[in-house]
This record gives sequence, structure tokens and C-alpha cells, in this order.
Amino acid sequence: MTDTSTRPRPSAIGWRLPPFYCPIEPAVHPRAGQLEQRAIAWLDSRGIFGNARDRAWSIATHSTDFSCRIIPYGDDEPLLLFIEWNHWAFALDDICHDTGSADIRTATIVDLNARIARCLEVPGSGMLGSSPFDAALEDLAARTRAMTTPVQLRRVTEGLRDWLFGAAWQVSNVERGVMPSLSDYVAMRPSINGTRFSLSWSEIAGGIRIPDHELYSAPVQALTEAAGFIVSCDNDLFSYAKEDSQETTDQNIVNVLAHERRCPAEQALEEALVIRDRAMTLFLDLRAQIARNAGLHLRRYLEALGHYISGCIRWMDAAPRYASPRNRYDLPVPGATYGITWRDSPRDTGTEPLPIASAAWWWEQLDAPVTACAATA
Amino acid sequence: MTDTSTRPRPSAIGWRLPPFYCPIEPAVHPRAGQLEQRAIAWLDSRGIFGNARDRAWSIATHSTDFSCRIIPYGDDEPLLLFIEWNHWAFALDDICHDTGSADIRTATIVDLNARIARCLEVPGSGMLGSSPFDAALEDLAARTRAMTTPVQLRRVTEGLRDWLFGAAWQVSNVERGVMPSLSDYVAMRPSINGTRFSLSWSEIAGGIRIPDHELYSAPVQALTEAAGFIVSCDNDLFSYAKEDSQETTDQNIVNVLAHERRCPAEQALEEALVIRDRAMTLFLDLRAQIARNAGLHLRRYLEALGHYISGCIRWMDAAPRYASPRNRYDLPVPGATYGITWRDSPRDTGTEPLPIASAAWWWEQLDAPVTACAATA
Repeated sequence: MTDTSTRPRPSAIGWRLPPFYCPIEPAVHPRAGQLEQRAIAWLDSRGIFGNARDRAWSIATHSTDFSCRIIPYGDDEPLLLFIEWNHWAFALDDICHDTGSADIRTATIVDLNARIARCLEVPGSGMLGSSPFDAALEDLAARTRAMTTPVQLRRVTEGLRDWLFGAAWQVSNVERGVMPSLSDYVAMRPSINGTRFSLSWSEIAGGIRIPDHELYSAPVQALTEAAGFIVSCDNDLFSYAKEDSQETTDQNIVNVLAHERRCPAEQALEEALVIRDRAMTLFLDLRAQIARNAGLHLRRYLEALGHYISGCIRWMDAAPRYASPRNRYDLPVPGATYGITWRDSPRDTGTEPLPIASAAWWWEQLDAPVTACAATA
Repeated sequence: MTDTSTRPRPSAIGWRLPPFYCPIEPAVHPRAGQLEQRAIAWLDSRGIFGNARDRAWSIATHSTDFSCRIIPYGDDEPLLLFIEWNHWAFALDDICHDTGSADIRTATIVDLNARIARCLEVPGSGMLGSSPFDAALEDLAARTRAMTTPVQLRRVTEGLRDWLFGAAWQVSNVERGVMPSLSDYVAMRPSINGTRFSLSWSEIAGGIRIPDHELYSAPVQALTEAAGFIVSCDNDLFSYAKEDSQETTDQNIVNVLAHERRCPAEQALEEALVIRDRAMTLFLDLRAQIARNAGLHLRRYLEALGHYISGCIRWMDAAPRYASPRNRYDLPVPGATYGITWRDSPRDTGTEPLPIASAAWWWEQLDAPVTACAATA
């Protein structure tokens, strides 16, 4: 972490994060700077933030860098829309879904989520309130509908629902005082991370028209979940400090393992890294296998999954949201970064399935054809 | 209602339901009797029900009649699987989702729903318990995965999630003590009813291979929601008495309107019928419009929507679940029926949009092309 004006309170997993294993070339959209200016102008024009501090923390999400690393070769207008969605979604996460408050009620979140989902799905549904935050979502939804084909819109709406599905489950754990088991966490974490929502924008902005029977084949779905899990593990490390002063213990891979193994955070971190690297090995092997017989659009989707993983690491490394977290800094620190390092090999050279029930099916896809489909009678 | 051994306690909307407007020819699968025997044998082999009374009430759902009227021309094996899913789903509804208890917790239901959804989506996810009811779902899920193509499986899983999404919202209203507004109710009711789950089986068992860009076009989605709403209104009438002794006021179209208009149930019923019939007029007009340029599979999907509406009325009319409800009878009454009547015209001859924000978009699809799609830049 770069030196900042005040030394931050220590993190249980350390400010110097362990080296990252990610043998995937990074890329970033060439017009990121220009897009960021437009996105911030949109935030200001919508009046979403009531004060300069909230505005600064929204900019500190580096939503543009996030979006432009996931989608390095995309069209400007849908990419801008995705950036703005991300500003909105981070705010929702911080204000409603992932507050860390023990008083959160799943009933309230489920109702809110239904209104959000239907706002995108049903033009004029009018299920939101009249705050600038609500009006901003109406604007995002209307522009998304206008910019997408029916299939693209469907993938965005399913992605949005999937994210809300994960968020509601996370909230239900907080309310019930439950730290999930490792297997349950692995099963749900890609949803909590909004994996499919982000990837639907990779398709739209990148002009990737992957056919349904390929996208929804078991190998491609397993690969997508594995990618979402890897990004989630990395997010859990970068956001560990950010969440460590909550009223309730944050649900992240380190705390899940510490709870399951009854071990300290440092030891849980070691196992988390092994699990994450083994998932990366699976991802690379399965992706290479699928690519061998893939058509143009499936190949481009496979590349998008790679950008998603490698882009998110670099984005989080340098986003003040994570590197100068709000529970330690009144305002984001410009230029704050974790200053991460890299490693060339996984911590674990095994290629057999992880002993995690919900993830075992990822490995079962090795040597399964993408086009496998049982015919109905 | 047929005469039964004891006169049932009156219902606020009367046991003699108002005549139904549904100018759609009914049909029923020719092997319904045989399929019902097989479905009951499955229930017994799985040991889902701990006593003869629960078993009798499951048979009283007439899940086979329900399924065989929705899918009158389908293949036996997927149709049987759908019947079994329905037995399972009615039990879940009665035991967990729609108990009428004021003590229900959304947090518990959201966790349960996540485990159910993932059971179908992730082979071996192991997120369920070990009861016969859980094992039955594992069996349904494994057989569904084995019997479907990736696209078909995706539609079933999205349909399942959509139903659970609606159920969780309904529970959240109960927990928060909220009777939804009319517009919110219309927006969510097709999900609560499991519309898309049922229709995904129409596709699978009926061999309907409607392409994504047609299924997810706004006109077809609006038509699907309108169909789901009509079936839901009808269900609200047939199940009104069944739900009228709950600890909490049931969320149905009559009670929603009575709450919104501050009027008695009889008056709310009148308005509910007008709304429902206007939706039926829209359904028929929009369906005819879409059919004009439809290919084979879209045409068959449009027919399936008709079977869904007209089949459900006849099924509910003669299902002891509704006609001899459990809050009035210790055991279902064999041969119980509402003995409904029909009418040839809608109660309301208007064709303009209903003044319900969340439904207005159904009418906007009149004269919109199915293949309308904005290209991405």
C-alpha cells in the first residue's frame, strides 16, 4: 500500500496482500479517461449524491476502470451505460445490501430487489419511489431497454436478478446470524458478485453474440461460475479491511474458512489462496478445452471471462474504495493502491477437483462437449 | 359446489363463483389417467408424505389434471416429470411459502429458495438436507437435467427462480404486514404463480422450440405476463375460501382491491372480474396479432398460453384442493367441484389499457413487431 498521510489501522490479513497468480494478459479500454468524465457528469446531473463526501466515495469505486478493464474493446455508449450502472450498484450495495448492520431485514431487501428488477423488466412499472437514486435507475433501465436486443436485454435482466438473488441470500445470513459453510458460499458467491450482470455487458458492449445453446451448456456455465468465484476470492481479499469493522462478521472466503476450520484468519487466508489458485488452474484448463472447438463468438466470450478476472485484480489494486477504505479514511486517498505483486505459478499444482461439493461439477466438465444435449423424447 | 356431507362455512365471495369468460378451447392429455397412477407411485416410492392425510391432500391438488390440461399434446416422460414437480411444489407452497402464518421469516425462505434453485442448477451442490422431501427434489432435479437440452434446462431454472422470486416477495409482504398495491400486485403475481416455470414445461414436453429472440421479444413477454395474470386472478377466486382463515389476510386480487379501494370483498370482486376480463381481451387481441407473422414454434407457444389459461380454470373447478378446502374439510371430498358456469363476452367491452401502471406495457405491444430489436452500436 502506498504511503498515505495517516498510517491505517492494520488488517488481519495484512495490507501487503500475497502475490496474485493470474497468467492472463490485461487490457484496458483506450477511451477510459473520456468515459470517466462522462460518467461523473451523469452522476452529477442525476443528483444522486447529497454531499461531496458521498460523491467522492462513488468516484473512488473507479467504476470506469472496473468497466473498461472488463470490456477493453467495447463500444462507447453501452460501456458508458455499464459504468453508470456500476456507480449505481456500488451505492446500492453500500447503502442497502452490504451495510454490515445487524439490523438489516431480508423482508425489506427482498421487496426492494423486486422493485429494482421490475424497473428494468417492465417499462412504466412505477414500483420505485421518487428519490434521485430511484430516478437514476429509471434512467439506466430506459436506456438499457432502448440499447439492447430482446436477447441482450434478457441476459441483463437475468444478470440483475442473479445479483439480487445473491445479495438477498447474503442479507438472510446476516439476519439469521449464520456464517455460511464453505460449499454454500462457493455456490452462491458468483451471484453475490454480480458475475452474470457484468458479463451480460461484456456481450452487449463487446458485440459478443454467443448463442444460447453454447452459453447455457454445462461447460460454459461451469467456467462462468469458476471465473465469478475467482474474481470473488480476489474481491474478498481486497475488501477484507474495508469490511472488518462491521457490526457483523463479513461473509468472505477468509472468514468462511476461519469459521469452518476454527482457525485464525492468517491460516484461513493460506487455504483460501490454495483454493483460489486451484480454481484458476481449472479455469485455464477448461477454457482451453472449450476454445478448441469454439466458434467466433464463444471464443470472444472466453476472452471476456479472462478480461473479467485479470481486469478486476488490477482495478481493485488501484481503487481507493479498497486501498484507502472508508472505515479508515474520511475521504478516499488519491492514488491509493495496494501495490500488489504477482506470481507465475499456482500455490497448488493439483488438478483434481477441490473437495467442495458445490464446485465439483466444474471439474466434471473437463472433456465434456459444449454442445452436449439430451434430446427430449 | 356439489353437495358434500357437511355444508361448508360460507366464503366472502360466495361458493357460487361468477361465470368465467374464456373463449379458448380446452383440451386434456389422453393418457392423464395412466400418468396420474405413475405420479402417485412416485410420491409413494419417495415417501414424501408422513401420513395418509397429507398424501390425500397432495393427490387432491390434481397435479396430473393441472399438468395434462396445460400440456394436452405432450410427450409422456417430461409430462410425468412436470406432474411430479407440481406435487412437490404444492407441498412446498403449503408447508413453507404460503402458510398464512404471521411468524414466517423472509430470511428463512430466501435461504431455502437459494438451496432449491441451486439444487436444480448445480449437480451435487448438496445444499439441501436429507429428508425425503429434499431427496425428492434431488431426484426431480437430476431427471430434469438428464432430460433437457441446455436451453430447455435454462428456461426451467429461470422459471423456477422466477417462481421463488415471487414467493419470497409474497412472504416479505406477510412479514412486513403489507397488503400490496394493485399495481405492485399485478407486476409480481405472474411470478408468484410460477407462470414461467409451468410454461418451460410446455416447451419441453410439447417439443416447442421457440427461439430466444422471439420468446424474449417485448410482445411475447407482455403476452406471457398477461396470461400469467389471468390464471392468477382465476386462482385467486378458486383459492379465496381456502385462504380465508389464515392468521394474515391473504394476498389475492380481491383483498388487494378491497384494501386499495377501502371497500367490501363483494365490491372488490366486481372490479377484479372487470380487470381480469379486460386482461383477457388484451390477451386475445395481442395473441392474434403476434400469430399473424409467427413461425411454427412461436404459434405453438401461443397455443400453449391458451391451454394454460383455459386448462387452469377447468382444473381448479374440479380439484378438491380448492373445491373442498383443507380449512373446512379434514379430508378432500372425492368429486368435489365448484361447478362453474361460463359467459360468452367480457364484463367490460373496453380495449384501452387498464389504469394500472405495471400492466400498461401489455397494451403498448399492440402493433409492435415481435422481431423489434435495437442494434447495439
